[in-house]
Amino acid sequence: MTNEKVLEAKNLITKGTVYQVGRVYESGMPMFGTRHYSLRIPQAFKIPGTNQAVYHDELVSGEMGQIGTQFDGLGHLGIGDLFYNGNNRSDFAQADGLTKLGIENVGPLVTRGLLIDVAAYKGVSQLGPSYEITAADLQGALQRQNLRIRAGDVVLIHTGWGSLWMKDNQKYIQSCPGIGLGAAQFLAGAEVTVVGADNWGVEVSPNPNASLAAPVHQLLIARNGIYLHENLNTADLARDNVYEFAYIFVPVPMKGATGSPGSPIAIR
Amino acid sequence: MTNEKVLEAKNLITKGTVYQVGRVYESGMPMFGTRHYSLRIPQAFKIPGTNQAVYHDELVSGEMGQIGTQFDGLGHLGIGDLFYNGNNRSDFAQADGLTKLGIENVGPLVTRGLLIDVAAYKGVSQLGPSYEITAADLQGALQRQNLRIRAGDVVLIHTGWGSLWMKDNQKYIQSCPGIGLGAAQFLAGAEVTVVGADNWGVEVSPNPNASLAAPVHQLLIARNGIYLHENLNTADLARDNVYEFAYIFVPVPMKGATGSPGSPIAIR
Amino acid sequence: MTNEKVLEAKNLITKGTVYQVGRVYESGMPMFGTRHYSLRIPQAFKIPGTNQAVYHDELVSGEMGQIGTQFDGLGHLGIGDLFYNGNNRSDFAQADGLTKLGIENVGPLVTRGLLIDVAAYKGVSQLGPSYEITAADLQGALQRQNLRIRAGDVVLIHTGWGSLWMKDNQKYIQSCPGIGLGAAQFLAGAEVTVVGADNWGVEVSPNPNASLAAPVHQLLIARNGIYLHENLNTADLARDNVYEFAYIFVPVPMKGATGSPGSPIAIR
Amino acid sequence: MTNEKVLEAKNLITKGTVYQVGRVYESGMPMFGTRHYSLRIPQAFKIPGTNQAVYHDELVSGEMGQIGTQFDGLGHLGIGDLFYNGNNRSDFAQADGLTKLGIENVGPLVTRGLLIDVAAYKGVSQLGPSYEITAADLQGALQRQNLRIRAGDVVLIHTGWGSLWMKDNQKYIQSCPGIGLGAAQFLAGAEVTVVGADNWGVEVSPNPNASLAAPVHQLLIARNGIYLHENLNTADLARDNVYEFAYIFVPVPMKGATGSPGSPIAIR
Repeated sequence: MTNEKVLEAKNLITKGTVYQVGRVYESGMPMFGTRHYSLRIPQAFKIPGTNQAVYHDELVSGEMGQIGTQFDGLGHLGIGDLFYNGNNRSDFAQADGLTKLGIENVGPLVTRGLLIDVAAYKGVSQLGPSYEITAADLQGALQRQNLRIRAGDVVLIHTGWGSLWMKDNQKYIQSCPGIGLGAAQFLAGAEVTVVGADNWGVEVSPNPNASLAAPVHQLLIARNGIYLHENLNTADLARDNVYEFAYIFVPVPMKGATGSPGSPIAIR
Repeated sequence: MTNEKVLEAKNLITKGTVYQVGRVYESGMPMFGTRHYSLRIPQAFKIPGTNQAVYHDELVSGEMGQIGTQFDGLGHLGIGDLFYNGNNRSDFAQADGLTKLGIENVGPLVTRGLLIDVAAYKGVSQLGPSYEITAADLQGALQRQNLRIRAGDVVLIHTGWGSLWMKDNQKYIQSCPGIGLGAAQFLAGAEVTVVGADNWGVEVSPNPNASLAAPVHQLLIARNGIYLHENLNTADLARDNVYEFAYIFVPVPMKGATGSPGSPIAIR
Repeated sequence: MTNEKVLEAKNLITKGTVYQVGRVYESGMPMFGTRHYSLRIPQAFKIPGTNQAVYHDELVSGEMGQIGTQFDGLGHLGIGDLFYNGNNRSDFAQADGLTKLGIENVGPLVTRGLLIDVAAYKGVSQLGPSYEITAADLQGALQRQNLRIRAGDVVLIHTGWGSLWMKDNQKYIQSCPGIGLGAAQFLAGAEVTVVGADNWGVEVSPNPNASLAAPVHQLLIARNGIYLHENLNTADLARDNVYEFAYIFVPVPMKGATGSPGSPIAIR
Repeated sequence: MTNEKVLEAKNLITKGTVYQVGRVYESGMPMFGTRHYSLRIPQAFKIPGTNQAVYHDELVSGEMGQIGTQFDGLGHLGIGDLFYNGNNRSDFAQADGLTKLGIENVGPLVTRGLLIDVAAYKGVSQLGPSYEITAADLQGALQRQNLRIRAGDVVLIHTGWGSLWMKDNQKYIQSCPGIGLGAAQFLAGAEVTVVGADNWGVEVSPNPNASLAAPVHQLLIARNGIYLHENLNTADLARDNVYEFAYIFVPVPMKGATGSPGSPIAIR
């Protein structure tokens, strides 16, 4: 982040309204494959002393950078063994953590954020399952919103799919509308920093080309070094027509992790 | 957070410089008691497809809200069974998570932040082990910095103790300089939102009164509903004499957790 | 276990055939409530050396004493705060482990084991959901098998419910046939050491008396100090009409745990 | 295990005395590298009902097959990518578990067990750090004990190193006396099933040949398909001169795991 981009974000704050764009982590939330999340409050700890200090902590277990609202780092996904910047998986993927491309290298993100409301552009509250968002969709929606992407921006996409979260988890995770390769290429060309969405993979799933799995991840993460932000809650922003804002997110700097939990915020 | 406070924070951003005030989570970092932190990168997952998508995630286990840089919520510590706002422990501390006072209720914090450099005020780079910071110390340091606390502010305290982190972990965790009850009362009276420090408990440890354990936690968290932010890295702010800034932190909204990991930022 | 009981078990070994009565722990197995089980193989570790030693280990997370084939210890369940032998929960249930009644106190179990095939006695391959096994059922089945219980024995009950394991997990966990209070009283009177079954709770669920939850657990564990062994695989024993055998089980001695994973064996 | 071997074990049971040869799993036990073990008792669960059923379970996290008393399976360690029986690591090491050589394939072990008390043979209570046990040592100790190894036996080696467990953990884990390549070759030639010891790696560490790391693991596990059993407590057997016994161990059948926790027993 350049100081200029931070100041550009600052200047988008005019009302002082903060939107929490991430979701609550909880038992039963939709998760990919056999990932899990468990939180337990142990028995209270009592510290000896006349003032009777009693405390709780929590034991958490899970694929913490890849469940719930999740921010994909550059060590998450590659093309065969080839990862971002020509790094070979065998050179940096160690049991104790990634020795390159770990999430702790990202640092704070404070930049201009845009919401592209593709659902509204298409005149629906929710795009259909496996609807592929095209570059033309993004361009049309931006035109409708009278906005242009600038280099270094974060782009969040509202598909309406997020309304299924914790309402119909099975449907939520089975497929999703999202961007296709054309839209991803458009965003990469616009030099965005992060692409987020209110679905579980940002990209359309399954891909219309049945022989491809996660090709948008490969294009954005591995080829272009663009982060993904998944399982967002963009409903409040869409409802209030908040299309331009300061986006702020600080990945939890877990050394050698592939991603990060945590909630980004949008301020206007 | 009121919109006014957010705008007050915004107006402290003049240069666009962002400081990451939290630490990296890593194996071997100092931890209290028998808490633990483990991160492992499993074998790579290969998704069937002609495009050879290969990915990693991470399995993490630990007391995630109470290790490393940690933000103490209001369900963390009480006086016997009595917690903040008259809540009895037995009413809300459940195995699956706190049903009241959980960290997911905090929401984003965007407010004016102050660094009080007590070490500099005392003319040292590091306060001694178990040095009790008094109300007079805070007032003197604020006067030296020509600043006043306003209601809703976040106050971070620089003791210099943080330079031991990952350098001499045993010394770091054995004791620490920090605020005593008088200083805590002063901060509570000033109606701050969060008190943070570059030590493991914000408060002096052990307390000069040997019969008391964690009394500052009780005063701030349980009696006044003030959050603590521990194991911060305030060295860069202190080095650059950055005493007033926008403090931004969004607790990871783990339902029913007692605290949160993650890195706050200071922007000026 | 007395030496006499061990020798009694020894003398039941006539063929040298060993039956593994426990199940495999795996992702997707039926579990109670929000319990979980996760196993991951991290990236390979490579030890420096000319001989290229490469190794794997596994990161496991779960409620290890209370998932899959599980052996309930005496600290698992009580009547209000009252647990076995007059112990009050608040005196021994600590965050770091039970300070009394922990599973590490059980030690190896080598004793005479009986299989009571209630399904065969009732002329079915599987008892119906929520069928309550009565004392008369146990007595009739024992008579059919021409066997008597002796003090110190382990009694395993075959209901046929276990055939649903990993076949119809939803049905398996929703309810189960099992012993009722009368049958439990009969077994307690016979001074058995362990009661096991091929269902998830040994006892009938839900209890025919809708106001009672887990009353058999209370009667056997809390009042009589009798262990339970759940989610067993008794199908092979039943198929081969193996009704009397050496039962051997050594709880994994996790200090302060409420139960244990692991597979008991039956040898004849 | 053949039925004959089971009956051979049975016939070694003459007194009915059972020795627990495994150790308690607890916080603070010696562990290799950055492995960890955590056990927590969550807040009590209360089941609705007039009978006030209250229960605890435990949340456990750790490298469960490779900490404390541990039984190494055939998928644990290889020579480069080559594992037992010509299996290539890339063919079976999956994130969700090993698809070949997983510990669930081992099954119950009921066989003749021997304790070889090398410490007593050398006239000491504890062999020195990094003492390499030779084939001649094993042969001499067997002669002293008037015993011969038979095919299918389990051999446990008493070095006396185990007396450091939880007494001087740092010394325990830093090095250890154990068998060298010659002794391992002797045991492999004798067609044993398992080699165990009261140290952390069975083999001498570091190896006298400084360029080799874990060569005995390679010889026994990868080349000969012989299991290792580490961190045993052989002190009681040695004290009572129990050199021949029924060895019984059932690996916890965690699907795809590299090893197993749990306590073997010796009965005579």
